[in-house]
Amino acid sequence: MKDIVVFGGSAHPELTAEVCAHLEVTQSPVSVSRFANDCLEVQLQANCRERDVFLIQPLVAPVQEHLFELLLMCDAARGASAGRITVVMPHYAYARSDKKDAPRISIGGRLVADLLTSAGANRVLAMTLHSPQVHGFFSVPVDHLHALRELASHFRQYDLSRTTVVSPDLGNAKEAAAFARLLGAKVAAGAKQRFPDDRVSISHVIGDIAGQDVIVLDDEIAKGSTVLELLGKLRELGPRSIRVACTHGLFAAGALKRLSEQEDVLEIVCTNTVPIPAEQVTGKLRVLSVAPALAEAMRRIHNGESVSALFDAS
Amino acid sequence: MKDIVVFGGSAHPELTAEVCAHLEVTQSPVSVSRFANDCLEVQLQANCRERDVFLIQPLVAPVQEHLFELLLMCDAARGASAGRITVVMPHYAYARSDKKDAPRISIGGRLVADLLTSAGANRVLAMTLHSPQVHGFFSVPVDHLHALRELASHFRQYDLSRTTVVSPDLGNAKEAAAFARLLGAKVAAGAKQRFPDDRVSISHVIGDIAGQDVIVLDDEIAKGSTVLELLGKLRELGPRSIRVACTHGLFAAGALKRLSEQEDVLEIVCTNTVPIPAEQVTGKLRVLSVAPALAEAMRRIHNGESVSALFDAS
Amino acid sequence: MKDIVVFGGSAHPELTAEVCAHLEVTQSPVSVSRFANDCLEVQLQANCRERDVFLIQPLVAPVQEHLFELLLMCDAARGASAGRITVVMPHYAYARSDKKDAPRISIGGRLVADLLTSAGANRVLAMTLHSPQVHGFFSVPVDHLHALRELASHFRQYDLSRTTVVSPDLGNAKEAAAFARLLGAKVAAGAKQRFPDDRVSISHVIGDIAGQDVIVLDDEIAKGSTVLELLGKLRELGPRSIRVACTHGLFAAGALKRLSEQEDVLEIVCTNTVPIPAEQVTGKLRVLSVAPALAEAMRRIHNGESVSALFDAS
Amino acid sequence: MKDIVVFGGSAHPELTAEVCAHLEVTQSPVSVSRFANDCLEVQLQANCRERDVFLIQPLVAPVQEHLFELLLMCDAARGASAGRITVVMPHYAYARSDKKDAPRISIGGRLVADLLTSAGANRVLAMTLHSPQVHGFFSVPVDHLHALRELASHFRQYDLSRTTVVSPDLGNAKEAAAFARLLGAKVAAGAKQRFPDDRVSISHVIGDIAGQDVIVLDDEIAKGSTVLELLGKLRELGPRSIRVACTHGLFAAGALKRLSEQEDVLEIVCTNTVPIPAEQVTGKLRVLSVAPALAEAMRRIHNGESVSALFDAS
Amino acid sequence: MKDIVVFGGSAHPELTAEVCAHLEVTQSPVSVSRFANDCLEVQLQANCRERDVFLIQPLVAPVQEHLFELLLMCDAARGASAGRITVVMPHYAYARSDKKDAPRISIGGRLVADLLTSAGANRVLAMTLHSPQVHGFFSVPVDHLHALRELASHFRQYDLSRTTVVSPDLGNAKEAAAFARLLGAKVAAGAKQRFPDDRVSISHVIGDIAGQDVIVLDDEIAKGSTVLELLGKLRELGPRSIRVACTHGLFAAGALKRLSEQEDVLEIVCTNTVPIPAEQVTGKLRVLSVAPALAEAMRRIHNGESVSALFDAS
Amino acid sequence: MKDIVVFGGSAHPELTAEVCAHLEVTQSPVSVSRFANDCLEVQLQANCRERDVFLIQPLVAPVQEHLFELLLMCDAARGASAGRITVVMPHYAYARSDKKDAPRISIGGRLVADLLTSAGANRVLAMTLHSPQVHGFFSVPVDHLHALRELASHFRQYDLSRTTVVSPDLGNAKEAAAFARLLGAKVAAGAKQRFPDDRVSISHVIGDIAGQDVIVLDDEIAKGSTVLELLGKLRELGPRSIRVACTHGLFAAGALKRLSEQEDVLEIVCTNTVPIPAEQVTGKLRVLSVAPALAEAMRRIHNGESVSALFDAS
Repeated sequence: MKDIVVFGGSAHPELTAEVCAHLEVTQSPVSVSRFANDCLEVQLQANCRERDVFLIQPLVAPVQEHLFELLLMCDAARGASAGRITVVMPHYAYARSDKKDAPRISIGGRLVADLLTSAGANRVLAMTLHSPQVHGFFSVPVDHLHALRELASHFRQYDLSRTTVVSPDLGNAKEAAAFARLLGAKVAAGAKQRFPDDRVSISHVIGDIAGQDVIVLDDEIAKGSTVLELLGKLRELGPRSIRVACTHGLFAAGALKRLSEQEDVLEIVCTNTVPIPAEQVTGKLRVLSVAPALAEAMRRIHNGESVSALFDAS
Repeated sequence: MKDIVVFGGSAHPELTAEVCAHLEVTQSPVSVSRFANDCLEVQLQANCRERDVFLIQPLVAPVQEHLFELLLMCDAARGASAGRITVVMPHYAYARSDKKDAPRISIGGRLVADLLTSAGANRVLAMTLHSPQVHGFFSVPVDHLHALRELASHFRQYDLSRTTVVSPDLGNAKEAAAFARLLGAKVAAGAKQRFPDDRVSISHVIGDIAGQDVIVLDDEIAKGSTVLELLGKLRELGPRSIRVACTHGLFAAGALKRLSEQEDVLEIVCTNTVPIPAEQVTGKLRVLSVAPALAEAMRRIHNGESVSALFDAS
Repeated sequence: MKDIVVFGGSAHPELTAEVCAHLEVTQSPVSVSRFANDCLEVQLQANCRERDVFLIQPLVAPVQEHLFELLLMCDAARGASAGRITVVMPHYAYARSDKKDAPRISIGGRLVADLLTSAGANRVLAMTLHSPQVHGFFSVPVDHLHALRELASHFRQYDLSRTTVVSPDLGNAKEAAAFARLLGAKVAAGAKQRFPDDRVSISHVIGDIAGQDVIVLDDEIAKGSTVLELLGKLRELGPRSIRVACTHGLFAAGALKRLSEQEDVLEIVCTNTVPIPAEQVTGKLRVLSVAPALAEAMRRIHNGESVSALFDAS
Repeated sequence: MKDIVVFGGSAHPELTAEVCAHLEVTQSPVSVSRFANDCLEVQLQANCRERDVFLIQPLVAPVQEHLFELLLMCDAARGASAGRITVVMPHYAYARSDKKDAPRISIGGRLVADLLTSAGANRVLAMTLHSPQVHGFFSVPVDHLHALRELASHFRQYDLSRTTVVSPDLGNAKEAAAFARLLGAKVAAGAKQRFPDDRVSISHVIGDIAGQDVIVLDDEIAKGSTVLELLGKLRELGPRSIRVACTHGLFAAGALKRLSEQEDVLEIVCTNTVPIPAEQVTGKLRVLSVAPALAEAMRRIHNGESVSALFDAS
Repeated sequence: MKDIVVFGGSAHPELTAEVCAHLEVTQSPVSVSRFANDCLEVQLQANCRERDVFLIQPLVAPVQEHLFELLLMCDAARGASAGRITVVMPHYAYARSDKKDAPRISIGGRLVADLLTSAGANRVLAMTLHSPQVHGFFSVPVDHLHALRELASHFRQYDLSRTTVVSPDLGNAKEAAAFARLLGAKVAAGAKQRFPDDRVSISHVIGDIAGQDVIVLDDEIAKGSTVLELLGKLRELGPRSIRVACTHGLFAAGALKRLSEQEDVLEIVCTNTVPIPAEQVTGKLRVLSVAPALAEAMRRIHNGESVSALFDAS
Repeated sequence: MKDIVVFGGSAHPELTAEVCAHLEVTQSPVSVSRFANDCLEVQLQANCRERDVFLIQPLVAPVQEHLFELLLMCDAARGASAGRITVVMPHYAYARSDKKDAPRISIGGRLVADLLTSAGANRVLAMTLHSPQVHGFFSVPVDHLHALRELASHFRQYDLSRTTVVSPDLGNAKEAAAFARLLGAKVAAGAKQRFPDDRVSISHVIGDIAGQDVIVLDDEIAKGSTVLELLGKLRELGPRSIRVACTHGLFAAGALKRLSEQEDVLEIVCTNTVPIPAEQVTGKLRVLSVAPALAEAMRRIHNGESVSALFDAS
C-alpha cells in the first residue's frame, strides 16, 4: 500500500486539520461546489491512485448534506483508483436508527451503512457508536474506538478518592463501569422505571452517591433531558460535587446553555467528535480532542498494526 | 401483483395529490420526522405488503434532503415487503452530473442511480433526463417520459402557421425537432461558437426566424443565462413574437423574474415537475401539469401495458 | 403467487405439524439423508415451482446441523423455482452473537443472516429476537413476532388484581412493561449493579413486590442463573407468589429441573419455539403454543395482509 | 503489487507489440484455440499470480469474437490469481450503443461494461469514447485517454498560421476546440439542420474557412458519410487546403478509398487504435501510433502515478 | 404472471417456430441489426412488460455471435420490464469447457453461466448438458431435459427383441442404460484404455454385441472420431445391424458425410437441438424434433407445474 | 502483502502443526467456544490486519460443525481486516454433492462454495476434488493440488518392474494413468457394467493383472465397498501382490478394519488430508503426509510464484 492521503469533508475541518497534524501528513484539499440546481460536486484535489485514502467526516447537522458529500467523496476516490478507502466517522448520527420500533420505517443505521459500501467505502473508523450492535450493520470492517482514555486523562487532574461514575441508564452502564475502572472509582446508574403505559422515568439511582464526587457519563448529549432528570435525582442523594461528561456533545436545542445554568454542575466535558459553534460555548465546557486517538488508529490501520491493541493497555 | 399504493415525499405534495386524483387512488400518507441530531425518519403509513408501491419525489432543492428522504422511503417499503417499488422522479437533478470532466470527481448521476438500487428501488419513472445516456446509469428498468405532448397541447391554442421552434443548443435539437413535428412548425437552433480558449457563446441561429412566431424550447431553465443570450441573438433576426418553454422550470437565482422582465417575451411555459413557490410566480408564467401523463404511465406500469406505446401515437 | 407450501426441518417436527394444522394445509414432506462422509442431503418432496414456500426450522441444538439443513432447504427450494422462500425461525440462537465484544471474532448473528440470504431466503419470520437491533442484520424483510399475547392468555386464568411483572434486567424491561399492560398489572425490574471489575449482580428490584403475585418474565431461559439470582432478591421482598415465564425455554444444563426444585416457584411457563425433551418435563412446566400465531402470520404474509396489524389490537 | 504482465488478444497484435516495446516489458504469449463446436479457449501463457495484468484488446471486427476472447482472458487471469486486471480497450465499439432510442433494445455500452466486470476486469483504460457519459456505464475505475497530442504533433510539421480545425458536429466541438488550442488555430463546426421529419443535414459551417488550411477532426470515421457531406459544404467556402483527422479509423464499406479519392483532401490522418488491413491503405493515409501514450498510461497506472497529470501539460 | 411471450434468436428460427406452434402462441418478432462497426443491436418487437418471456437460442456456430445476441436479448427484455426471463438453450456448447485441465484458462461453462445472469436471465431451460455438474455452474434455476423419450419413440418402430444400446464411453453409460431401460434392451459400453502416456483408445466393448441390433448412443457428435473408432471395435464382434443416435448433431468437419459413408451403418438419428444445413443432409439421417418436449416444459414452467414430473412417467 | 499468518480449525490440528513446521511459521492460536445455546464463537488470537491469512480446515466429520467453524473463522478474519483470506481445505467433503440427480435437492458442492465466499474467503487451496468440475463451483480462485507425487515417493521403495496401477472406475482412470506414468508402471481399470435396471457392478478389469504387483488407486475410500468388489475381480486374474492407495482415507463404518482383514492386501496407503483416530489404525496402514505439499503451495501463493509449476516437474 502506498502513501496515506487524508481528505476532510466540510463537516469538521478543524478536526481534520488536527488529525493531519498528529499524523504529520499534509491535509489534501477538497473542493465542494453547489450547482444552481442544488446538486453537490466534490473534487478530491490530490492523487489518490493506489493510495491509502482516509475521508474524515462526522455525520453532524446538516446531516443529509454531510452524508451525501461523504458519499460523493467515496465515489470520487474509488473512481480515482484509490488503493483503499477508509471512512473516518467520529460521529455516526444514524446509529440511533438501529431498530424497527414502528412498522414501515427504515432502519437508517443499516441503510446508511449499505449506502457507504455502495459508494465505495472499504472500511470504517467509528467512535462510540450508540449501540454495539450497529457494528454488525456494516458489511465492511469497522474499527470502533471509544474516548474513555481521553476522558479519564482529563479527570485524573482531580482528587478521585471519593468519585462515583454515574450512567443515566442501567442498559448502558457497561461503559460507565469501564470508565470507573480506569479512574479507580465507584460506579452507579440511574434505574428507569417503566410504567405499564410505556412512560419512562428515572426512579432510583443505584450505587453510592452521598458525599461522593459524581461524574455523570453518557455516550452523547443531544437535548440533555435525560441528564437533567438524572441531576434531579442525584441532588436528592447529596453528592459532594457533580460533573457531566460525554463523547458526542451534540447539544441541540440550547442543551449546553441549560446544563451550564445548573449551578451545582461544575463542569461539562465532551470531545470534539462534533464541532461546537463558538457562540454556544460556555465557561463550564471543556472539549477534549480525539484527534490523537484517531490519528494513532489511522496510523495503525495504514501500517497494518493491531488497533485493538490500542485499547488493551488501558 | 396486488393493488397500487402511492406515497409522495415532501418535495412536491401537490403533484402527488394530482397524480393520485388522476389514478383515482387514495394517496397513502407518509410521516417524516426529524430527530434532535438532524437525522430523518420516514414512516409509510399504509400496508405495502405485496403491493405495487410508487414513491413520487422529484429531486428539487433541498436536493440532498429530498434524496435521502426518498432513499429512506425505498428502504422502508422494501422492509415492509412491498411487491415492487417504482421511484417516480419527475425531475432528476443529478442527471446533469453525467461525465467526469475533471479528475477525481464523482459521476453523481451514476452514483445516485446506484444508491437508489441499493436502497431497494426496483424501477424508475423519469421525465426528460438531461442527456439520454443517463438512462444507462441505472441497473434497473427505467421508463423515460417527455412532456412534449403537454407543451404541444398548450401551444395549439395559438395560430401556428408561422411558428419556429428554437433550441438554444444544436446538440439538443432533436427534442426541438420532435416538438416542431408535433406542431407542424419549423425548427431552428442556436449554434454555439466555441473559442480555442473553451469559451462558448451563441454565434448564429440556424433556421428561419424573421417574421416567425418563435417558441424557444429547452429541457430545463435554471439560471436562464443561455435563454437570455439566445433572446439577444433572436432579436437581431426580427421574430414576430417570442415565447419560452421548458419541461423543468427550476428558475434559480431570480431567473423567472428576469425572464418575465423581457418585454418581448409573451409567455413562459413550463410543467409542474418542479414546484414553483407562489411568491415567484409572474403573470407571464403558465404551468402545465404532467400529472395526467405520470398517472397514465403508472397505470400502464401497474397493468403491464406498454409505456412506449404511450408515445407512439404522437 | 400460487399456493402456500410448508416444509419443516428436523429441528422441531411437532411445531411444523401444528402450524400446518392451523393453516389447514398439508405439510409437505422433507427427506434428510446423511452420507458416509457425514454430508447432509435434503430433498423437498413436493412441487415448489412458483409456490409460496415456507421453511420452518428453529435454530436449536444441534445448532450447526439444523442451520446447515436449513441452508440446504433454502437452496433446494430456490433451485426448484420456488416463487418465494420464507424462513420461519421461531428461535434464532445466533441472535445472541450480536456485537464484537472481543477482537477478531465474528458477529455470528450478522454472518448467519448473510448465509441465509446467500442460500436463497427471501424473507424471515422470527420470534422474540434477543435484541431488536438483530433485525437490522438481515438484508431481506423480517417479520418479528413476540409471544406476549400467548403468555397473557395463559395468565388471565388467574386473579391478576395484585400482580407485578418482573424483568430480570432493566435493559429489557420494555417487553415486561408491554406484558404488564396486557395484564393490567404493575411492572418491576431487577437492577444489575456493575462493579468496576465488570462483575455484575442484581442489587435491587425496582417496583412493588411485597404481597404481590409475581410473574418473572424473560425472553429466554438457558442455564437459568439470572432467574435464580433474581428469585433470591425477590424472596427478600416478600412476594405473595412467584411464577416464571419466558418465550424461549432452552433449559440447558439442567435448568428446568433446578428451577422446578425452587419450592416457591408455582409454575414455569414457556412457549414451544424450542422443543423440550419429554424426559426433562416437570410437573411445574406449562408449554404454550406459538403455532396459532405463526400460522396467522404466515397466512397474512401469503395473502399480503398487514402483519404489524396482528399486534396492534393488543 | 508485483511486476507488470502484458497480454494481447488477437484483435491487434501489432499494437500490443508496440506498447510492450515502449514499456520495455516482454509481451506474454496468449494461446487462442477454437474447438470443433466453435467455442473458444484462451490460455494465458505466463504466471499471473499477484501480477499487475494488462489485457490489450480493441473491440474491432469481428467484434463479438474479440469481445468474448477478452472476457475469457479476464476470467482466466482472475482464476490465475492476478493481482489486478486492467482491460486496455483502445477502441470501445459498443460505446455507440449509449442510449435507448427505440423501445426494447439493450443499451449495449452499459451491458458490455457489466459483462467485463462480471468476467473479472478491475479497471479499464479507454481512448476517445464516443460520448463522455459512457464513462459512467462502468462500475470500475476508467482512465479515459484521448489522442489529441499525437495528432497535434503530426500537424505541427506544417505551417499552422492560417489553420482552422473543423468539427463535423457542433455537439462534439469541444474536442475540436481543445485541439485548436493545442495548435494555436481557429475552430469551426458544421451545424446540422434538423428538419421536423427528423432528417438531418449540415446546413452551415460556423467559423472562418475561406483561405484557411482546414483540418476536419472527428472521433471516428466509419462509413465516412458525415465527413463527405462536410467536405461539400467546406468547398463552397473556399478553404486553402483540407486535411482529415480522427482517432479511430474504422473505414468501413470502402470509406478510406472514397475519402482518398477526394482530390482536394491532401491527407487522412488517424491513429492505430484500430488495425487497418494493408490492402486498404492508400497513399494519403498517415497512421499515428498511440502506443507511446498507452504505454505511458499503463506505466503510471502500475506505479500509482497520476494519469490525469498526463494530460495537464498539454 | 402475465402471458407467455416467446422470442427466438437467429441461431435456429425453425425450432423457435415449431416450439411456438406446439405452445399455440404467436412467435414474437426480433429484429437484429449490425452497425458499420460490427456491433449488434437487437430489438424485441413485442411488449415484454410483466410478461413471462422465453428466449430460444441454442449456442451453435457462430457461437460467439449467437451468444452475444442472446445476451443482448436478455438485457433488452430486462430493460423492458419483463416479469421473468427464461433462456431456452437446447444446446449449450460451452458446457464442454467444464474444468481447468490446463493452467490459466477460463472454465468457459461457468463464465457464460455468469454472463447470462449478469445480462438478466432469471432461469435456464437446457437439454442434455455435456456433464451433469454443469448444472451447478448456474446461480439461477435450471431445468435440465434430455431427449431419450424422443429417441426411444423413434426406435420403437423396429423389432427391439435383440437390441443392445452401446455407449462409446463407460463414463457416460448411465444415459445409455436409461435408454436401454426405455427400450427393454441390453446395454454395452466401449472401455477406453488409457496408456501411461495419456493416450486413450477403445480397447474393449463390454456387453453382448454378437448377433445383436446395435444402437450407438452419445450425447453429441462433433467430428465423429470416437464413434468411428467404436464402429471398428463393434465390427470385430459381429453385430447384426448398427444404428447411431445422439441428441446434439453438430457434425463438424464433414462428420455426417463420413458416418453416412460407413456401409454397415443403417441410420444416423439425432434431434433438432442444432440446425443442420440442408446441403449436409444425407439419406441415412433422421432428425427428431425436441420442440414438443421444449414446448411442454415451457408450458409447465409458465404454469408452475412440476417439470421433473415430465420425466417420471418414462 | 504483509506476513503470512496461519490458523487451524479444530478439524485437524496435527496437520496444521505440521504445515506450520514446514513453512517455518509459528501457528497462530484459535479459540473455539460453545455457548449454552450450542452456538459457536471463534476467536482468532493473532493480528490479521493486512496479513496473508491461511485457514486450514478439512471438512471431515462432524462436517457441519467444522464447516460452520470455518465460516466463522473467515468472517472473523475479514472483520479483522485480513489482507487476504485463503481457505485451505485438504478434504472438501461436499464436492461429492456435485449434481442434481434427484429433483428438489441442493447441489451442496456449489452451495458451500457460495457460503465460503459469502463469509469472506478470497481463495481456496484444495486437494484431489471428487470431480474436476467442482473447481467451477467456486467464484474465487482455486488452487487444486493432488497427492500423486507423495504416493509415488512411497511406492518407489519397492521393485516396480512388474507393477500395474488399477483404477476401480474407468471414469476416473485419468489419475491412475498419471500415477502409472510417475512410476513407469502399467495401468488397468475396473469396467463397471451397468444393467438396464441401473444396477452397477464391476464386470471386467481391463489391463494386465496376472503376475503383476497391483496398486489399487482411488481418490477416496469411505465405506470401501467398491475396493472390496474390485479385489474380488482382481483375485480371479492372479496378481502377484496387491496394495491399496488413496488420497482421502475416510474409512467410514469400519472400512479400514475390513480392508486390513483381506489377507492378500499387503498395505493400505493414504495421506493425512483426513485425520485417522488412533484406535482405528491397523498394522497395514501407511499414512503419508501432504503437509510438505500444502506448505509449498502456501509459500508460493504467498510469494506470488506459480503453483501450477509445482506439478510440471513430475
